[in-house]
Amino acid sequence: MKNSITCANLLVAVALLTAAPATAANGDEGMWLFTNPPRKLLQKKYDFNPSDDWLEHLQRASVRLNQGGSGSFVSADGLVMTNHHVGAGALQKLSSKKKDYLKDGFAAKNRAEELKCVDLELNVLMEIEDVTQRVNAAVKPGGSPAEAQKARRAVMNTIEAESLKKTGLRSDVVTLYHGGLYHLYRFKKYTDVRLVFAPEQDIAFFGGDPDNFEYPRFDLDVCFFRVYENDKPVKIEHFLKFSPSGAKDGELVFVSGHPGRTNRLNTMAHLEFIRDRVFPSGLNVIRRREVMLRVFSERSDENARRAKRELFRYCNWRKARLGALAGLQDPVIISGKRAAEEAFRKAVAANAKLKATGGDAWGEVAAAVKAWDEIYYSHLLLERGYAFNTRLFRIARSLLRMAEESEKPNAERLRTYRESNLESVRHQLFSKAPIYKDLETAKLADSLGMFIEMAGAEDELVRRVLAGRSPRDRADQLVRGTGLQSVALRKKLADGGLAAVKSSGDPMLELARLVDAPARKLRGTYEQKVEEPLRQAYARIARARFALAGTGVYPDATFTLRLAFGPVRGYEQFGQRIPPWTTFGGAYRHADAHGNKDPFRLPESWIGRKDRLDLNTPCNFVCTADIIGGNSGSPVVNRDGEVVGLIFDGNRHSLVWGFVYDDQQGRAVSVCSSAIIEALKKVYDADWLAAELGQ
Amino acid sequence: MKNSITCANLLVAVALLTAAPATAANGDEGMWLFTNPPRKLLQKKYDFNPSDDWLEHLQRASVRLNQGGSGSFVSADGLVMTNHHVGAGALQKLSSKKKDYLKDGFAAKNRAEELKCVDLELNVLMEIEDVTQRVNAAVKPGGSPAEAQKARRAVMNTIEAESLKKTGLRSDVVTLYHGGLYHLYRFKKYTDVRLVFAPEQDIAFFGGDPDNFEYPRFDLDVCFFRVYENDKPVKIEHFLKFSPSGAKDGELVFVSGHPGRTNRLNTMAHLEFIRDRVFPSGLNVIRRREVMLRVFSERSDENARRAKRELFRYCNWRKARLGALAGLQDPVIISGKRAAEEAFRKAVAANAKLKATGGDAWGEVAAAVKAWDEIYYSHLLLERGYAFNTRLFRIARSLLRMAEESEKPNAERLRTYRESNLESVRHQLFSKAPIYKDLETAKLADSLGMFIEMAGAEDELVRRVLAGRSPRDRADQLVRGTGLQSVALRKKLADGGLAAVKSSGDPMLELARLVDAPARKLRGTYEQKVEEPLRQAYARIARARFALAGTGVYPDATFTLRLAFGPVRGYEQFGQRIPPWTTFGGAYRHADAHGNKDPFRLPESWIGRKDRLDLNTPCNFVCTADIIGGNSGSPVVNRDGEVVGLIFDGNRHSLVWGFVYDDQQGRAVSVCSSAIIEALKKVYDADWLAAELGQ
Repeated sequence: MKNSITCANLLVAVALLTAAPATAANGDEGMWLFTNPPRKLLQKKYDFNPSDDWLEHLQRASVRLNQGGSGSFVSADGLVMTNHHVGAGALQKLSSKKKDYLKDGFAAKNRAEELKCVDLELNVLMEIEDVTQRVNAAVKPGGSPAEAQKARRAVMNTIEAESLKKTGLRSDVVTLYHGGLYHLYRFKKYTDVRLVFAPEQDIAFFGGDPDNFEYPRFDLDVCFFRVYENDKPVKIEHFLKFSPSGAKDGELVFVSGHPGRTNRLNTMAHLEFIRDRVFPSGLNVIRRREVMLRVFSERSDENARRAKRELFRYCNWRKARLGALAGLQDPVIISGKRAAEEAFRKAVAANAKLKATGGDAWGEVAAAVKAWDEIYYSHLLLERGYAFNTRLFRIARSLLRMAEESEKPNAERLRTYRESNLESVRHQLFSKAPIYKDLETAKLADSLGMFIEMAGAEDELVRRVLAGRSPRDRADQLVRGTGLQSVALRKKLADGGLAAVKSSGDPMLELARLVDAPARKLRGTYEQKVEEPLRQAYARIARARFALAGTGVYPDATFTLRLAFGPVRGYEQFGQRIPPWTTFGGAYRHADAHGNKDPFRLPESWIGRKDRLDLNTPCNFVCTADIIGGNSGSPVVNRDGEVVGLIFDGNRHSLVWGFVYDDQQGRAVSVCSSAIIEALKKVYDADWLAAELGQ
Repeated sequence: MKNSITCANLLVAVALLTAAPATAANGDEGMWLFTNPPRKLLQKKYDFNPSDDWLEHLQRASVRLNQGGSGSFVSADGLVMTNHHVGAGALQKLSSKKKDYLKDGFAAKNRAEELKCVDLELNVLMEIEDVTQRVNAAVKPGGSPAEAQKARRAVMNTIEAESLKKTGLRSDVVTLYHGGLYHLYRFKKYTDVRLVFAPEQDIAFFGGDPDNFEYPRFDLDVCFFRVYENDKPVKIEHFLKFSPSGAKDGELVFVSGHPGRTNRLNTMAHLEFIRDRVFPSGLNVIRRREVMLRVFSERSDENARRAKRELFRYCNWRKARLGALAGLQDPVIISGKRAAEEAFRKAVAANAKLKATGGDAWGEVAAAVKAWDEIYYSHLLLERGYAFNTRLFRIARSLLRMAEESEKPNAERLRTYRESNLESVRHQLFSKAPIYKDLETAKLADSLGMFIEMAGAEDELVRRVLAGRSPRDRADQLVRGTGLQSVALRKKLADGGLAAVKSSGDPMLELARLVDAPARKLRGTYEQKVEEPLRQAYARIARARFALAGTGVYPDATFTLRLAFGPVRGYEQFGQRIPPWTTFGGAYRHADAHGNKDPFRLPESWIGRKDRLDLNTPCNFVCTADIIGGNSGSPVVNRDGEVVGLIFDGNRHSLVWGFVYDDQQGRAVSVCSSAIIEALKKVYDADWLAAELGQ
């Protein structure tokens, strides 16, 4: 089945684009839709024209891990390769005080030993259909934002429900270009996923936070899962073969993955809001949680184990955000963005037709951002749940809202609870992932404290939430009192529907009920005063861009499948030439230079097997392919579609890529395919796994 | 020389007080002035009446470490005892990549080996004189806040200069009761201070951040310095002898030290401002610096060494502030404070005379706090220098302001640069403490980033400060370009006076000049709209309190000498009885329970000498004496004035003591005198030092 992008809408857009001069693309910039790959660019610059089969094969071999991250099928028997840090959530959930797979790794000796993951969901993009016309036709021109929002939600929920019914595939309408296009993506969904192999965290994340987003690197950030159906490994037609030789310096490579979010098409007003409000306040939250989790972790080894994955995420997020904010605070970068916007607005103003239909889209974005600013903190605290940072609250809210929304016709439901998504919601809701009450209490107490700080101690809702107690006492009371750590109770409440959920005396459900009305009200304000005006304004800007800017326009990242490309290439930093490759030998030297101490400590297995390893084995490499968070675990393939690497990071210079791509120094960082094979054979005695990879 | 508190003012106040019913004091609450000890309370509750000699001896044996912390003379040869964490700054400054005294400790084998500290200044309070009348008489009634501020500054600067000239002693006018009384304190000052002994940080701060502010504890948080004059140990008349037996359970003990700051007399409006603005924003700054320094530290052992002392301070500060904020967020505590304020205001309103002279002092505090809120962040950033977090900037500003202020008559100078304080300013300014440019760059870059976040990227001053660069690039340029790490250059600039400082092309001085006008303007606004109205309103509240509340009124802490007392006593926590004592044996068990891993790792010396130690030796103990940050290093003495312990911490329940004292669970935590002696003899072979302590 091929992608059925045949509708007039995109063709018109593409026709417009191809007529205009290629502009935007900077070096090898671009997170391209598989339905609109940069054929001309590839042809011209690299003399390469991917066939439809080549594209389809790569698309179908690519996997999305729904909790964040990318992966790929690498054997006919459903073997999936991704990063250790992407699989870390699954590893954490499988671990206990007795056995810490996240820290110590895991290697199944045979299929029977493969460990069933707790709640992992994998998606494979099977079909793409342009539904822009149908979505836009449902929204009556001249209606209020509330009406537009309602109509669009209805048509999207309906399209998805119809598609699910028709095809049995998970069906999501994806908004591209911030509202310029709507595509229906159909995914094959896998929920029986088993752990096959993971190395120790000390080698997967060797160098720790100090080396994160840096280069040179020496990380074996890989793990393998296997997808099952009916208790048998699935048979996969489209999987990627490993290259026997890896990539060469200067060789063109491709990255197929799921970049999470970029803001490159944002207007200046929107970027300034991110710079002045979103990132600084977000970093304050990240830092307070990082500190809180570190304090919790330092009390004992078991505490550290319980909080490990979450602490890693905040550290990672902090470093990425700081780098991105530094970009937005750099006058050179900002003045470049400003000049580009001014030039574009001039071009739009000079085009009579665009000017007439465009309206003041930039002014409308600025107004929407201003409205956002007014509700920013209360929206975060209540609707996004920052005030109640515990999984137990999220479970309570999910139970409550699922019950409430399920009473409504599908077309009117909140997007999360649309018919076509309920199975995924229930998969998460009934997850048996361990819940540690001490950790949840520490998290909730901290976030209730933040709630007081941000909403004010005299706020009526704050008073009702705290019920006369201090944040710590109230958190203790809520976490101690709730029964929602029990999956059976969750199922019982879900089965009982609205009546059961509304009458439950569980204190966490009572809290969810207490805050739900004000939270939903804020959601409504956000949808009508922020989201919808932004969507409409950006849709107009996107149409102007299509008309003026040529094929060098790809949509901002949306955690859906994209194709990026670029050569393997080193760069200069502080006057030094950084070669594209590192080697295993470099890893040992790096550990020695830091006294083999955490986080520069190699695991025992690597120390013991040093003699067996070919120390010249390429370890990590960099290329110019355009990636961002969410791409972690993406396969890197050569022109023949063979795996030469595995994306796991960007260097520090890539941290601004959320706003502007630049390949002077910015690089994607990958594990070399050869490193994976050499380590499997020589360190982990996993020859059978190397053999399954064809090596 | 006795303290010359004989002026009518205090006598009147005391007369009023003794006539009123004893109220405020809660259990053994109180940080009492040595000129007004709670004789009646001690007599009644403990049958103890300290003689004037007893008080004078304890006062003169008490030492203030000017960079924060308390200590005491413990031998006739100028030996000073304080905490390891109080001496940590001095230890850090003495250390280098080759020798890390902060981590590894130090033990002089004889006096010739004692290490001269870089810039430590010790003060001993010799005389106290009430100057309230003279200060108040200088301020004309009915004048503007600016006039009042100017007049008060002039009289204080003048009193101090006269006193310095007359006595040769460091002379500071101290504001008590937020403006209710003014005392002139005369100090003997010591600046040749040498390190005698410090244990390893692993035992001084055993349990690290997790155990900080917790109990039971097992820390040998002690170090010894010796004070020299003319290259010879000074001969000390008033020094404390060690008790041969230590204190018993229930025994009354006394703490003589320098509590830094409490806010117990603050109005509700002022407390709410601290709860809603000061502490939350302060914690955000603390956390960001903690994270920044941890990131810096993780890159290498040498980085960790360079940042160690500073990182510790932020961790300590974070934990103390979080505990205090939790208290302010506790409805029970807040409603208690509110009820007390309402009762007090009612009593004032019911007293015709007080009502007539009192005015709406509470309303005036609220108005001043509101004015403070309006300039809060800009005042922090510019005048308090949060935007420029590097010692190099502080040096530049100090050079600039010292030159500017020295041109003015003494009466008109900023308090810091008054004649009587210039010697101390120069002592700090010309300190040879090492400056690490990599660390200073990281700190400055982070704070410039915060400056953009808080003042806005489009702010004119932000633009001028950044000069077209990103925070990191600008920080790099400034730190790389400045020559102010050179003490010789600092001296040259200071000697060159205003002309030299104004014409210098040093980039850090240029920065200091750039921000000085707006910073001084904010200082003026703060002084006139916040500080002065607060002082006047609190002075009236204090007078009403003197009139109504009896002797149970001591002034809030001001980092000047106070006397606290209370019995050695355990408490209940989570339904468990916590005994007052721990033992050395407990330390080994605590380490074992945590796998002997950092921060629960005992140093080699302790592991090697375990067999020699009496494991039943009392290690740490708690008492109910009323202390706060700044009291660290205070001696704990018995009725005979003998040392039984050394204050080093409060437990978690004491963290609210900044606002309200409560001894249900709140406790001061001390090192036992017996632990110090046993460790000196059995672990460190420092028998000579134990002998100097008379043991």
